[in-house]
Amino acid sequence: MIKMQNADLKKILEKYKEIYILGEIPALLGWDQNTYMPQAAAENRALQITAIEEIITNKWNNAELRSLIESLDDTVLNEVESAAIRNIRRVTKYYFKVPKKTILHAAGVYSKAFSAWQVAKQNDDFASFAPHLTEVVALKKEIAGYLGTQKNPYDALLDLYEPGLTSVDCENVFSYLQPKITSLLERITASAEYKKPISFLEKPHRYEIQKQQELSAFLLQKMTFASNETRLDESAHPFTTGIGRHDIRITTKYHEDDMRSAYAATIHEAGHGLYELGVDNAYDYSPFAGGVSLGIHESQSRFWENQIGRSPQFLQYMEPIFETLFPAAFGGATTQDILKYVNYVKPGLIRIESDEVTYNLHIMVRYEIESGLLNNTISVTEIPEVWREKMKKYLGVVPTTDREGCLQDVHWSYGDMGYFPTYCLGTLFAAQFTETMKKDIVLDNLIKTGSLAPIREWLRTHIHAQGSRYMPKEIIKRVTGEDLNPKYFVDYLEKKYSAIYAL
Amino acid sequence: MIKMQNADLKKILEKYKEIYILGEIPALLGWDQNTYMPQAAAENRALQITAIEEIITNKWNNAELRSLIESLDDTVLNEVESAAIRNIRRVTKYYFKVPKKTILHAAGVYSKAFSAWQVAKQNDDFASFAPHLTEVVALKKEIAGYLGTQKNPYDALLDLYEPGLTSVDCENVFSYLQPKITSLLERITASAEYKKPISFLEKPHRYEIQKQQELSAFLLQKMTFASNETRLDESAHPFTTGIGRHDIRITTKYHEDDMRSAYAATIHEAGHGLYELGVDNAYDYSPFAGGVSLGIHESQSRFWENQIGRSPQFLQYMEPIFETLFPAAFGGATTQDILKYVNYVKPGLIRIESDEVTYNLHIMVRYEIESGLLNNTISVTEIPEVWREKMKKYLGVVPTTDREGCLQDVHWSYGDMGYFPTYCLGTLFAAQFTETMKKDIVLDNLIKTGSLAPIREWLRTHIHAQGSRYMPKEIIKRVTGEDLNPKYFVDYLEKKYSAIYAL
Repeated sequence: MIKMQNADLKKILEKYKEIYILGEIPALLGWDQNTYMPQAAAENRALQITAIEEIITNKWNNAELRSLIESLDDTVLNEVESAAIRNIRRVTKYYFKVPKKTILHAAGVYSKAFSAWQVAKQNDDFASFAPHLTEVVALKKEIAGYLGTQKNPYDALLDLYEPGLTSVDCENVFSYLQPKITSLLERITASAEYKKPISFLEKPHRYEIQKQQELSAFLLQKMTFASNETRLDESAHPFTTGIGRHDIRITTKYHEDDMRSAYAATIHEAGHGLYELGVDNAYDYSPFAGGVSLGIHESQSRFWENQIGRSPQFLQYMEPIFETLFPAAFGGATTQDILKYVNYVKPGLIRIESDEVTYNLHIMVRYEIESGLLNNTISVTEIPEVWREKMKKYLGVVPTTDREGCLQDVHWSYGDMGYFPTYCLGTLFAAQFTETMKKDIVLDNLIKTGSLAPIREWLRTHIHAQGSRYMPKEIIKRVTGEDLNPKYFVDYLEKKYSAIYAL
Repeated sequence: MIKMQNADLKKILEKYKEIYILGEIPALLGWDQNTYMPQAAAENRALQITAIEEIITNKWNNAELRSLIESLDDTVLNEVESAAIRNIRRVTKYYFKVPKKTILHAAGVYSKAFSAWQVAKQNDDFASFAPHLTEVVALKKEIAGYLGTQKNPYDALLDLYEPGLTSVDCENVFSYLQPKITSLLERITASAEYKKPISFLEKPHRYEIQKQQELSAFLLQKMTFASNETRLDESAHPFTTGIGRHDIRITTKYHEDDMRSAYAATIHEAGHGLYELGVDNAYDYSPFAGGVSLGIHESQSRFWENQIGRSPQFLQYMEPIFETLFPAAFGGATTQDILKYVNYVKPGLIRIESDEVTYNLHIMVRYEIESGLLNNTISVTEIPEVWREKMKKYLGVVPTTDREGCLQDVHWSYGDMGYFPTYCLGTLFAAQFTETMKKDIVLDNLIKTGSLAPIREWLRTHIHAQGSRYMPKEIIKRVTGEDLNPKYFVDYLEKKYSAIYAL
């Protein structure tokens, strides 16, 4: 545990640890629900999660603790102590400003909205989900109202996921990115190389699940993902969860007809996992434990997934391994075939299936709709139509069903609004970190030889070990010497895809 | 939920439900720890379990709830209401009478004793475990003191596991059983049939794990163990746990060189599981939810394991299935070979590997030592010596190590003293229930044809559905028309083993 001098702060930190431990329990309940829980237990599981969440809410709202947190005099604290109470106040802001009634009511609304979303998506029936989404949006507005006095209520939500992020930040980033991505996309799809078919895909292949499992195990071992502190399981949607300091679990999803999704998901989630595993042990159970924000977290997963997993250098290293595991598919494949297969660029309807060039365009569609909902310029019933318009505008494709349109993502039903932009931020941070990293280590050579341990070490030293000691904007500045700069991401895409498609 | 009229009782039941739901959470924490939790997470898991247990202890000790429970006037209640408050008072007795300080201290003592036991067992080093066990015994005496004014302090502990069970009950049962079992054992081991080798075991066989998994799945399906409400996993020691009304999980353990342990464990644990699954839905979250006692629970697991799984009729039904799954081992086996293989009687050192004839002799050894410890006639340091004496006396075998002697079982390190006798009770109840069942259904014919559903239905109607509505002694009386009678068990053994060994 980190040493603090201030007596009141010490008392607060003791309570913080107590609540921190309780907070690990819903993580297990959630992991289990997504992996091994028997189907019929869902309703009961919701009761268990609500029960423990209520206890945590009550613990934060304990009058004595609240008074200690609110009245602590910042001026007498040193820098580390200030950072600690800042982090605690970031957590408690939600519990102190939003009425307990609203917090618990929200849990019920999200739970019902989630079930309604599952059915609506299956039946392609947005109308049945709309009343639930209307309730969610009303609740998010109410919560934004409690949380802050920002000009834009959406900013209050953004800040919950990414400390300090504002809609102005997002708009600056998106207005910079969008024309550059669109231009690159046009040049790629118009290229002669793009039009050449990938020879080994001319007939369908079967990628044995057991071999894909071996591949995942190999990747985790390469990434030095310590097996005595981690697990890899399978779930419908891959995710990472921390159940304890030495208990970081990731999931992947195997598809028999396409090995790319499990390949990317395993690397991506292990990237999240390495961040959590790498936090300095001195921060255990303290306000500095764990990753600092969704954006920084996503930078780690995206870095491993894209800058490593989809790089020409690593694919070259993996080529003989792919051939051994899946001889029928990869036996006759050229290096260029594999590179294009794993980096296939195509404007599509589904965010989670999209490539790294078009991915952020999907985020923009969601950002603009969320922002419109919070600022009353878009109503819930208009979403399907607005979705189609924006997909047409940014990606040039239009879904014919809402299942492949505005019903595709789970986030809104869970009450997660303001979350999507952090996915985009992650890709930008990853590219910016990569350029800094290259000043210290010869990245391409390490990747080419499958020597990933020094890469992990660099990330651990510069990013992981710090946990939540610094806010995201501070981390970027400390690590890269400058503020977020989306130019690095654009340069990365330009360079990589110009090479692949001979632009 | 069951309908209650009394207004105070209704208030109590609302709180009961709240605590009941929280109580399901440590069940998941425990299940996970024994199945999938990464190795390095043990210390953290202990903190999580302690945290939730402390919350539950505090909830029971809430002054308003406690006052409602203690002051409820029994004389105005109807019979169902009386049963409900009786059950609640059985639970709260522990929380109200034992000081909170002691309850939480005990959790720490057991946790350390458990770790010490693991090391001591591995190193065959009783001396290193002795100080921990001394602490456990002192604590059990202290707790027994808080709980009651019984003549024998051991009775207070027995009652925690098996409502109403006393040391006088145990002694009556054991003094009846012991000479009869010893006599049967002597006749079996002296018989000509016993001395004939089991031909197919003349060389060792390998039982492929995947085939054993198929066998387990087949058995569960035969037992109508609904897969959408259950799971089967593997753990070092097989167990059953209920994590929710529709979430009953069992584990088994596969050994490559012997298929009997997984065969018996899967059936045994599914027997426990069927009991929990069969409780009337009207009792959900009420004091009547779940099985009533360890003894009745064990009667269900033992019934399925022994009266079904090890019966000549079921083994005859299984013979072609064994042959298909394990052709090398069972291909040349005779029906009699298989019967003797699965029912091999041998006085041995290890309780969990023992057969149904000698099993209860192992329980007697433990019962006498526990009783002696609680009544100060045996000291902790004397245990290894006393163990050897009693093993010699009852089983005629003497362990040369404590690992195979008094360190073999986990129970004492967990603070479970007074638990072992319920294993014996279970075998007696199972035999007694079986005789009653035979008045309603043609058991042997059903078993012979693998028609297990009507057997489950009989158990559900007569035992499972009642949950904890009636106390164990009431259940025996209501179902069989008489009190516990160990004669049924002795008759069952005599008949079965006389046939197998041509006595």
